[in-house]
Amino acid sequence: MNLIETLNWRYATKRMTGASVPQEKIDTILEAIRLSASSMGLQPYTILVISDEGTKQKLFESAIKQPQIKEASHVLVFAAWATITENQISEYINHVAEERGVAVESLAGFKASLTGFTQNRTDEENFNWAARQAYIALGTGLVAAAAEKIDATPMEGFDPKAVDAVLGLTEKNLRTAVVMPLGFRDEAADFLAKAKKVRRTKEKLFLELA
Amino acid sequence: MNLIETLNWRYATKRMTGASVPQEKIDTILEAIRLSASSMGLQPYTILVISDEGTKQKLFESAIKQPQIKEASHVLVFAAWATITENQISEYINHVAEERGVAVESLAGFKASLTGFTQNRTDEENFNWAARQAYIALGTGLVAAAAEKIDATPMEGFDPKAVDAVLGLTEKNLRTAVVMPLGFRDEAADFLAKAKKVRRTKEKLFLELA
Repeated sequence: MNLIETLNWRYATKRMTGASVPQEKIDTILEAIRLSASSMGLQPYTILVISDEGTKQKLFESAIKQPQIKEASHVLVFAAWATITENQISEYINHVAEERGVAVESLAGFKASLTGFTQNRTDEENFNWAARQAYIALGTGLVAAAAEKIDATPMEGFDPKAVDAVLGLTEKNLRTAVVMPLGFRDEAADFLAKAKKVRRTKEKLFLELA
Repeated sequence: MNLIETLNWRYATKRMTGASVPQEKIDTILEAIRLSASSMGLQPYTILVISDEGTKQKLFESAIKQPQIKEASHVLVFAAWATITENQISEYINHVAEERGVAVESLAGFKASLTGFTQNRTDEENFNWAARQAYIALGTGLVAAAAEKIDATPMEGFDPKAVDAVLGLTEKNLRTAVVMPLGFRDEAADFLAKAKKVRRTKEKLFLELA
């Protein structure tokens, strides 16, 4: 794929057709999200993958009153960790040790800095940090969807507490950060489908110090 | 390019060779960043593109004590708007009207919702929101760099106020959110260059509600 063409093809789809996205395309998009960068590699978020009609309907009715939620094939909810616990950090460090075939003890310095870093902040600060990491994954997911010619909409305009309630996220120590429906654009119904993409000019967006 | 292979190729490069990245590759990476999604299309950030050795040295000495800052060809500093003003919103709305060839008045509803949304929040809340948008651009930029076989490191481990001071960002109504050096990995010096990439398993990262 040509990345620039891919990015020009995509847009924040406002209306979708309801058609199903083939599973192998969903799998590729999720794998791209899984491979996303995150600070210190922690990936402090969980992504809910919702294709169940009943759940989509409940989200639409009580939390995200936008038609894409019902018209999407799959709705991805990026939920950041509400708190960051020492258990989560230990699990991560053990996983790194196992995957790289090194002793857990050899990662003691890394573990101490990750622990110090997260335990010195409030839960709200950690959540905001975790949410930023989720946005890197969102950015990766938007590229991945477009590369598969699947439409997607990055969505913030919802009631996060209501999404948490519908999905039972509080009990899972999660808080909704951002939502991405996946599906197919409905060109006839979507006023944005043929609108020119508007972006800040490179002269305004970039400041070169050379 | 194959996106999954591209994402597997990249990693948070800790040491770079100092070699220059060709301008056309920089241009492609910046264009991908420019095309990134952002909430309501506002792109509430400015990206500083630093290739000047003196500035890189100053950043290294007083703000970002990591060797990639000196060893990178270009350092991108994603700076989010410190405050969101009605002037910035008007400029954006005028730009949309001009690009799409519609009357500014036809965008009055959109402008009102964007104004209401941003003016009802504190500057800190707006900054955090703007920073999240910058992270979408960071995610896109990381993919774009890897697609060009250029190494990149998403960096948060720095003193943001010191970066602001070196680059004179406060006067520009900007605050540093995240940094991305671009260059070429130094495989001999970088302990991470050959380390296995570790990511949460899909069973842990994703929760399917089907």
